[in-house]
Amino acid sequence: MAGCPAGLNIDIEKIQKELDRRRPGQSDLTTTRFETDTVTFLSGIFEGKTTGTPIAFQIPNKDQRSKDYSDIKDVYRPSHADYVYDAKYGIRDYRGGGRASARETAVRVAAGAIAKQFLDLSKIRITAFVSAIADAEVTTPLNELDLSAPENELRCPDAKVAAQMRKRIEQAREEGDSLGGIITGVIQNVPPGLGEPVFDKLHAELGKAMLSINAVKGFEIGSGFAAAKMRGSEHNDAFEQSENKTVTKTNYSGGVQGGISNGMNIEFRVAFKPVASISKPQDTVDKEGKQTQIKIEGRHDPCVVPRAVPIVEAMAALVIADYLLLNRTNIV
Amino acid sequence: MAGCPAGLNIDIEKIQKELDRRRPGQSDLTTTRFETDTVTFLSGIFEGKTTGTPIAFQIPNKDQRSKDYSDIKDVYRPSHADYVYDAKYGIRDYRGGGRASARETAVRVAAGAIAKQFLDLSKIRITAFVSAIADAEVTTPLNELDLSAPENELRCPDAKVAAQMRKRIEQAREEGDSLGGIITGVIQNVPPGLGEPVFDKLHAELGKAMLSINAVKGFEIGSGFAAAKMRGSEHNDAFEQSENKTVTKTNYSGGVQGGISNGMNIEFRVAFKPVASISKPQDTVDKEGKQTQIKIEGRHDPCVVPRAVPIVEAMAALVIADYLLLNRTNIV
Amino acid sequence: MAGCPAGLNIDIEKIQKELDRRRPGQSDLTTTRFETDTVTFLSGIFEGKTTGTPIAFQIPNKDQRSKDYSDIKDVYRPSHADYVYDAKYGIRDYRGGGRASARETAVRVAAGAIAKQFLDLSKIRITAFVSAIADAEVTTPLNELDLSAPENELRCPDAKVAAQMRKRIEQAREEGDSLGGIITGVIQNVPPGLGEPVFDKLHAELGKAMLSINAVKGFEIGSGFAAAKMRGSEHNDAFEQSENKTVTKTNYSGGVQGGISNGMNIEFRVAFKPVASISKPQDTVDKEGKQTQIKIEGRHDPCVVPRAVPIVEAMAALVIADYLLLNRTNIV
Amino acid sequence: MAGCPAGLNIDIEKIQKELDRRRPGQSDLTTTRFETDTVTFLSGIFEGKTTGTPIAFQIPNKDQRSKDYSDIKDVYRPSHADYVYDAKYGIRDYRGGGRASARETAVRVAAGAIAKQFLDLSKIRITAFVSAIADAEVTTPLNELDLSAPENELRCPDAKVAAQMRKRIEQAREEGDSLGGIITGVIQNVPPGLGEPVFDKLHAELGKAMLSINAVKGFEIGSGFAAAKMRGSEHNDAFEQSENKTVTKTNYSGGVQGGISNGMNIEFRVAFKPVASISKPQDTVDKEGKQTQIKIEGRHDPCVVPRAVPIVEAMAALVIADYLLLNRTNIV
Repeated sequence: MAGCPAGLNIDIEKIQKELDRRRPGQSDLTTTRFETDTVTFLSGIFEGKTTGTPIAFQIPNKDQRSKDYSDIKDVYRPSHADYVYDAKYGIRDYRGGGRASARETAVRVAAGAIAKQFLDLSKIRITAFVSAIADAEVTTPLNELDLSAPENELRCPDAKVAAQMRKRIEQAREEGDSLGGIITGVIQNVPPGLGEPVFDKLHAELGKAMLSINAVKGFEIGSGFAAAKMRGSEHNDAFEQSENKTVTKTNYSGGVQGGISNGMNIEFRVAFKPVASISKPQDTVDKEGKQTQIKIEGRHDPCVVPRAVPIVEAMAALVIADYLLLNRTNIV
Repeated sequence: MAGCPAGLNIDIEKIQKELDRRRPGQSDLTTTRFETDTVTFLSGIFEGKTTGTPIAFQIPNKDQRSKDYSDIKDVYRPSHADYVYDAKYGIRDYRGGGRASARETAVRVAAGAIAKQFLDLSKIRITAFVSAIADAEVTTPLNELDLSAPENELRCPDAKVAAQMRKRIEQAREEGDSLGGIITGVIQNVPPGLGEPVFDKLHAELGKAMLSINAVKGFEIGSGFAAAKMRGSEHNDAFEQSENKTVTKTNYSGGVQGGISNGMNIEFRVAFKPVASISKPQDTVDKEGKQTQIKIEGRHDPCVVPRAVPIVEAMAALVIADYLLLNRTNIV
Repeated sequence: MAGCPAGLNIDIEKIQKELDRRRPGQSDLTTTRFETDTVTFLSGIFEGKTTGTPIAFQIPNKDQRSKDYSDIKDVYRPSHADYVYDAKYGIRDYRGGGRASARETAVRVAAGAIAKQFLDLSKIRITAFVSAIADAEVTTPLNELDLSAPENELRCPDAKVAAQMRKRIEQAREEGDSLGGIITGVIQNVPPGLGEPVFDKLHAELGKAMLSINAVKGFEIGSGFAAAKMRGSEHNDAFEQSENKTVTKTNYSGGVQGGISNGMNIEFRVAFKPVASISKPQDTVDKEGKQTQIKIEGRHDPCVVPRAVPIVEAMAALVIADYLLLNRTNIV
Repeated sequence: MAGCPAGLNIDIEKIQKELDRRRPGQSDLTTTRFETDTVTFLSGIFEGKTTGTPIAFQIPNKDQRSKDYSDIKDVYRPSHADYVYDAKYGIRDYRGGGRASARETAVRVAAGAIAKQFLDLSKIRITAFVSAIADAEVTTPLNELDLSAPENELRCPDAKVAAQMRKRIEQAREEGDSLGGIITGVIQNVPPGLGEPVFDKLHAELGKAMLSINAVKGFEIGSGFAAAKMRGSEHNDAFEQSENKTVTKTNYSGGVQGGISNGMNIEFRVAFKPVASISKPQDTVDKEGKQTQIKIEGRHDPCVVPRAVPIVEAMAALVIADYLLLNRTNIV
């Protein structure tokens, strides 16, 4: 993680806690693959503080079983990256999926945990939660949810909906199938002025960051796709003055106007597809283009969405931290 | 536009045609503000070919009326960028909106028109169309639409839905209000292998490009938000062999897997909010935080979505052209 | 010029003055080609202040005579970029040299003049002068020269040496030949801490900036090549305390240690080759590889070094301004 | 090392050999600090080939003695980076010098060794050698030296001069002092067309790369500083045809014209200052600005120039490899 300012106090336990929120095997709903995901720092921290040197760290994989890869070595798993890696590079490291493995997201969580500690200095707070899995959806308005409550296994702040989600996941697992879902993110206390006016709009970079997470298929900010059915007179966020600050009565903008934060909460939603690794047999082809079937063995999550919550938070933290630093160069 | 390879034959008429698709005053549904948007090239083209030099061009604004800006000089238009520009820079050029003006998108269209001519060499074809305005929505499946038919005023390939859209727009205009909508994009003949595996996934960059367009609030690729309700066994795109190529039976992936194109059509949707400039009176504050009202005069579009179609295509063309060039460095 | 902070007061006359120092036809020693090099700003400045928007400007070429290019259309001028442009791009705009023309440096001077006004706020002062032309060399130590004196035509602070330089140039012009030289640069009042530790060392970026100027063949900082013959005990700059600041007794480091400014004057030297355009006949080949001769007509400078002084200053100003802004992100 | 194309056969022994050329303790002339500098690859290579994944590697420091740093913890070593790190970051990891340590260059050598294997495919060959240490200088013209001969301890192709160099180094060591020197680099078989026309000229980036190496104070290409005393008629490299290729009779340009390679050998020189770590007592100040003396203990090289040869080659290889890849996007 390059670009972290010097002099930041680092609480390594907090980083480990974020990794624990993501790691496999944390509850009975996730894969039984157990990884401790313990992070070791190699550079950039000295006597508990960042030094301005790039922060290098490692998260070794301790539960790597010696495994037989012959089933996926030459056969393309549907909706996995096997085929496109071969198409792009002409060579593929089939052991564990390479960079297409979801394990890659562990480093995002560790880096994001450092960014969060930087954002703490500005009281900026990032919270994400699971707002939908399959047809189990949170319908309570965002501002009526208690985002500071301790999170449950499902990472869904509505206990009733969480119970439904649990049922859907248990059923999908029994059937050897998988489920998608939606994560909602809220960023509080962002100062107005973050973001660049044209190509690097704040929500454009935030969207890119989210879309770069494995399995993400959609991103929306504020009103999102619902805006398509709204009228300007309804969607426009009227300004008003409150406690000596200029605020908006509504927040359909999702905290960003013209690509720049306006000081309101940044609210966004991220859509996840069901994970591609399922134990049901599937049609596919092999490297030579011969038709075949594949049955993916192994200990896969029936639904990764709850484990993706810290990843969404981490990517949001990295984007906001970057723009906060960039903003220091705005005026003379 | 830097980075355009040398030796590309440039058809300037084609560029002008794209600009004409975007320009104000092109039909009775758009603003009556008339701009010819004529492009003049300053560098980078010699004897009809690109030279490798950055391509500089100008699109002068010919219908700039000398105007009284006193109403917006100190008052923040709701859901415009006025407030955030002041917050960010401490200074704002209030004449015409500066970089937050939609006029900025004209240069995207011109640059994209050059990218399209580059993509033509690889037979890559980019088509966007209006799939929804307010509640008027195209429901015909994408693969049953005739994307090569000449486009109508609404840029909607379903004539019946287009007629509905026209009605909604006419009504909104009468009421001094505005409407949002959705644009669907399709990119055909993309070779497999475009895109980078981790942070710069193809659809992440495509999403960023779309989210950087004025008024965009959401982006989805392939199944998008619908994926949240699907199961893996349904969503996975089974591979099969067809005409000596590896293809997928379905295309929920939207042509991108693991961030890399798989050779199928790239399909995406972009949500636009209703434009913020409406003639209805609105509550707001001024620079000093005093409560006031604003009534935005001028010749505004009740719905910009049809005019945004060439912008969406242009941004898609620029992203694909960039990745196509980047891909030349993939293998030894 | 993107990246200029908002709120900077711009004195356009000062920018024009810098352009006048560079422009052709400014004295009897330069080319008789007369260009006014008048700059027009297109964006980024509003009511005398920068707005944070990229600053776009134009410097039209007013003395562009309609000219016969048939002599250089297919024949490669020795030590010009004609051949390499053809080799790289397969196409070459032979009218005026394209980006290889020294006219390109006018925009550097204009941009640098803005950077200088930004640096003025921090009292950072950049001064360059001609320290050698042919065998006429300034031998007075740097700290004994009066760098604030008004500059003469030769831009050499030692009047005697300036007179010698004038003779050398007059003689070269008579002979249809050209001369090289050296420019020395001094940057005063740089705060300690500018520069990045590894690949983007301050003097590395400064060197790159200088080497990117037409005709530059060498760059050295502080002791430079003379360091090769020195011993550590002689070269090391001992620290001492002076007026509550940590300074060094000597300055062989040239104001940069470990790639980071140490608060002392940054001192560097830039070597210029004799310009390639000479009126003497020269051996060369044409596009088909056929041996031929060329005699370059036109109004060329016998020595561009005095006119290059504002270019060196401009590039230095841009580098220091960039690092000054970057440095705002160093610590929490 | 990101950006390495996939499918490159990697000979790890060759990488280790380059590291051995740089490592401390390799001869009686270098520090007695013995480090094996064994490289371990963590990613990016699979079955002997690059996969397109960033190549991560580690070179653990095995001879790290537990050491007392109290002498340098609060006292600034003259011409070291101690003071500027404190000035920049407000915090300094004093154990071993952090990123200012010359150990950092080991990773450059490893990365460069991979770049060299990539350049091998294009027959591009990079050779550097010591052309001067103190007053012992190679005076034989470059084209009369045998650059393919096995290198001696001094890495100087002129055996007589090498013997002189050895004497100078032995004497400096006895006196607890250090020496500077010059390294000459030659890059053969570069195709014409590499380099970008304006700011990213090939020799500008090459110069930056060299100036980013510890202890470098100067860079010149081709004629370099000597150009300042030459005339155009002498310095211009006349074109001629040879074996169906356009070549130049002389090579004062050093293989680069207008920032772009012309196919001739790229020739450059890099000046190194004497290392700052000497055992003689030196005047300095401590963190509080109090005057003091320092005597740097430890096993330091009296002259690092021979060990810097593989670093110069590595940086040159990385620059040329980058431009070679970039050049794939030049034309349609």
